[in-house]
Amino acid sequence: MSTLAEQLQKMETHSSVFESAVRQLPLPVCAAFGSATQPQAVSFASSPRVLSTKDSDSVARSFPNSVQASGNVVLSSSGTNLQAAQGKRVAVLFSGGPASGGHNVVCGIKRILGKGNTLFGVRPGPRGLLKGDLFEITDADIDSIINTGGFDFLGTDRTKIKSEKQFQQVKDTCIRHNLDAIVIIGGDDSNTNAAVLAEYLFKDVKADGSGVQVIGVPKTIDGDLQIGDLLPISFGFDTATKIYAEMVGNILQDTRSSLKYWHFIKLMGRSASHVTIEVALQTKPAVTLISEEVAEKKQSLSSIIDQIAHAVVTRADKGLNHGVVLVPEGLIEFIPEMHALIAELNDAVAQNAVEFAALHDLARPMFIQNKLTPDNATLLASLPDYIVSMLLAERDSHGNLQVSLIPTEQLLIDMTARSIKEIDASISFTAQSHFLGYEGRCGAPTLFDAAYTYNLGLTAGSLILDGRTGYMATVTGLTAGGFPQAIPLTGLLNIERRHGHDEFVIEKALVKMDSPAMKYFVSRRSEWAADDLFASPGPRQLWGPAAYQQPISVALNSASESLAFKIG
Amino acid sequence: MSTLAEQLQKMETHSSVFESAVRQLPLPVCAAFGSATQPQAVSFASSPRVLSTKDSDSVARSFPNSVQASGNVVLSSSGTNLQAAQGKRVAVLFSGGPASGGHNVVCGIKRILGKGNTLFGVRPGPRGLLKGDLFEITDADIDSIINTGGFDFLGTDRTKIKSEKQFQQVKDTCIRHNLDAIVIIGGDDSNTNAAVLAEYLFKDVKADGSGVQVIGVPKTIDGDLQIGDLLPISFGFDTATKIYAEMVGNILQDTRSSLKYWHFIKLMGRSASHVTIEVALQTKPAVTLISEEVAEKKQSLSSIIDQIAHAVVTRADKGLNHGVVLVPEGLIEFIPEMHALIAELNDAVAQNAVEFAALHDLARPMFIQNKLTPDNATLLASLPDYIVSMLLAERDSHGNLQVSLIPTEQLLIDMTARSIKEIDASISFTAQSHFLGYEGRCGAPTLFDAAYTYNLGLTAGSLILDGRTGYMATVTGLTAGGFPQAIPLTGLLNIERRHGHDEFVIEKALVKMDSPAMKYFVSRRSEWAADDLFASPGPRQLWGPAAYQQPISVALNSASESLAFKIG
Repeated sequence: MSTLAEQLQKMETHSSVFESAVRQLPLPVCAAFGSATQPQAVSFASSPRVLSTKDSDSVARSFPNSVQASGNVVLSSSGTNLQAAQGKRVAVLFSGGPASGGHNVVCGIKRILGKGNTLFGVRPGPRGLLKGDLFEITDADIDSIINTGGFDFLGTDRTKIKSEKQFQQVKDTCIRHNLDAIVIIGGDDSNTNAAVLAEYLFKDVKADGSGVQVIGVPKTIDGDLQIGDLLPISFGFDTATKIYAEMVGNILQDTRSSLKYWHFIKLMGRSASHVTIEVALQTKPAVTLISEEVAEKKQSLSSIIDQIAHAVVTRADKGLNHGVVLVPEGLIEFIPEMHALIAELNDAVAQNAVEFAALHDLARPMFIQNKLTPDNATLLASLPDYIVSMLLAERDSHGNLQVSLIPTEQLLIDMTARSIKEIDASISFTAQSHFLGYEGRCGAPTLFDAAYTYNLGLTAGSLILDGRTGYMATVTGLTAGGFPQAIPLTGLLNIERRHGHDEFVIEKALVKMDSPAMKYFVSRRSEWAADDLFASPGPRQLWGPAAYQQPISVALNSASESLAFKIG
Repeated sequence: MSTLAEQLQKMETHSSVFESAVRQLPLPVCAAFGSATQPQAVSFASSPRVLSTKDSDSVARSFPNSVQASGNVVLSSSGTNLQAAQGKRVAVLFSGGPASGGHNVVCGIKRILGKGNTLFGVRPGPRGLLKGDLFEITDADIDSIINTGGFDFLGTDRTKIKSEKQFQQVKDTCIRHNLDAIVIIGGDDSNTNAAVLAEYLFKDVKADGSGVQVIGVPKTIDGDLQIGDLLPISFGFDTATKIYAEMVGNILQDTRSSLKYWHFIKLMGRSASHVTIEVALQTKPAVTLISEEVAEKKQSLSSIIDQIAHAVVTRADKGLNHGVVLVPEGLIEFIPEMHALIAELNDAVAQNAVEFAALHDLARPMFIQNKLTPDNATLLASLPDYIVSMLLAERDSHGNLQVSLIPTEQLLIDMTARSIKEIDASISFTAQSHFLGYEGRCGAPTLFDAAYTYNLGLTAGSLILDGRTGYMATVTGLTAGGFPQAIPLTGLLNIERRHGHDEFVIEKALVKMDSPAMKYFVSRRSEWAADDLFASPGPRQLWGPAAYQQPISVALNSASESLAFKIG
């Protein structure tokens, strides 16, 4: 170690002791790429597998070039690419919320492109692509970002490229920078965008009539971009859930140490509860709510409160006046009666906008209650005042409530407290609330995410050098060494009615009630509720015996033999 | 690794992959204890150092036995104790909030007591001592708790032992269980309690006229129990601050990735800002507030807002619409004008209690504003409504406001937003708030805390076998191998007027403006405010090249050569 003064100074350039050490960590590569120190681009060949959705015919009409070229056939790596292209100019960008491992995707692409091609970074995100804000990525950049968390090397944004004008701007950027390919690192929406761009840029972009290749890379901490064994998990999920699981494990140890608190912890994930179920499997808290189950069983808010109160009372009988409740961020919208209430409120507020706006805040609840159907009026009346205020507060530009602003965890605490008081006022129930979100998006990647993303980058780069477009890079067989593959994006597209017109979408993967992870959780949860059987999985380790772990839900759902992953 | 099913089952007994691995981690011991695998008890001899406070004479009158025995002289280890006592029956308990490493203190004590003596666990905390709830700690217990976080092995509570009846209860417990010694693991209050108990139990507890020894062990994540080079830091501080620093570092990377958020992060520490300054040194965010500086400079709330707004505007000029603000939990009480306002509010509410209680919530602010001095009335009027409501809300049993309930981080966000709007409404300022507290108290100990606490346990056990009482165990020279020493508790006591009568206290160590850590922070902070010079220190590592780090503030304040610590 260097001296204290030097160490402190270095930190200001992202070189804390950890950051400096983690950059030196060697990364394994799939056997297909040859040696870890000198990975070689692979070529791809058709696998027997063809993808389709209910809308494949319509998709084929809208994406004629892409579908004709790919036939929606999954590609597998087929040996070192001896005719790998040279002189390609490739741009890479992040799209949507950040996720750990993004930097390593960039490193993998750069590594495969080698000296014979040029890699440009686009900043920030799709907005940067529209503006044409590109810079050449150097080997020194790679040395500095490898194995570090965040998307801060390029930044990101959430601009959606959908208008004709925007497509033209992208084309202009391609022409101005003489690009041959674009890699979009993003979630379901961003990969849909990649499919659309791939089709748009398929040909006739450059003077010689050639097009620009577009490759997607699957990212999202929410874990809702999954395609069976072709994509068991997107990158960033493992790091985020391990960060949350450590915090939840720490809090669980605190509950059994302090012996007097319940903690209600909301976890990021608005659409799906993958994050919540993974954290539950890692830590085994007393109560875990799964949005998809609530919707499937048509649970009411009061039945959820009953479930929590039951756990509180059962544990109190055993002298356990403490526990943890995990709450997925999107829960409220999955409760059918809340969904109905919010929909009717949106309508009622819109239909009585002038009168409503003129009323004093305090008069609004009574006014609106009289406009509701009896069930909804009763439900509204059962909610704490501050929730009612929020439900009647500002709508977004579409006239919808911003459900994400509702503090679900506090709502559950207050309603549980009320319920406990009615059941047995002598039971001690003191609760704290937490929301774990931003903390998990940009942490240093776990070894799983670090290795996975580096190989995703090697795969994406190989696809480009193999002349492919309209594919999402993937690495399958994550416990068997890892195999570079490519998923034809058009094979994933569905058509959904959104805001009054048809849109192409990649369907979000939700937690399935019959998945092995869900079944395991269901088989154990009553025991976890009744006693302290929790685990504290600790800080993620980059060195030593605890470093090689894949997500538990992925291990269960893919029938892995153990928690260990194996790449390379 | 075992199979997935086995791994999942084991987790339910605190045996996640990490927990199983970390229990095998070998711990270094100070050279004084001999070999790490077979540590031997040391004996102690007087050092040249005598401790005193302004109240030493009064303390000597109140603690005649302890002061006569120790002379307030610091003890140093003086070689292996060849006459170490045998047959001792020792009880150990946790007191106050949990802190990482507590389990290893227990392990160290057990290890030194060996087969010739018996160690009992008291649960939970001082309350367990009053009730006499003791159980024998086995070697199997030690194998299961070593290197794990939390106080969950014994639990803890905050009961203060001060009444004559309570002292008698403790004596009864000692007699009933035939105890020879008690080890109290706790903070400043708990160690004061240890001093009082040591005096009370000094002699005539048992039939033969002998007493019961009492030894304290210095714990607190707040870091406000410090005694110069004799106790550079209490245990738990390093783990807590490294957990918080990782989260803050992750969020900093998120700010530079997402490019659109300010995050205001409140950090645990009501009395002192050690945690905040340590996290600032680890991560270098744009703005860090230090309570002690605010008090020393008599800063007003509006001047603090000006400082934050200035950073927001300066950074916005450079295109940086993001940043992080660190806020110590106790800030509000350190702002002189807020302190004055709260004091006058407490009086005004008490003096007009009947009238005030009869008023509608909405009428209270105006009513009370008219009772205040002009300055306080103006200040109250400048605060957001929800803060005014809180300031006028329920008092505790002493008629005081529960300042800890005030969401300081949200107050600063709202006032900064208002200020930015006035300065330049075109500047984008979107902020998120966080409170990092419970997450940091029970995490798996860092290697620093794990090694430090194990050696504190070896030291505490050695003091007992050497027949000592009324001392706090300490390990000095944490970068030079570590030296077991003992601090006479009576040498630390001051007398303070609390709730109308004199009480003995160990003064809380606050952040000193002339400390090297504070000076370094002050020398760099304007640069950190103006640009993104942050570090992301990553998850704490138990293996590998990043594992050996002491706290930065401790390294600076003790003039260490590097961040590395060295025990053994």
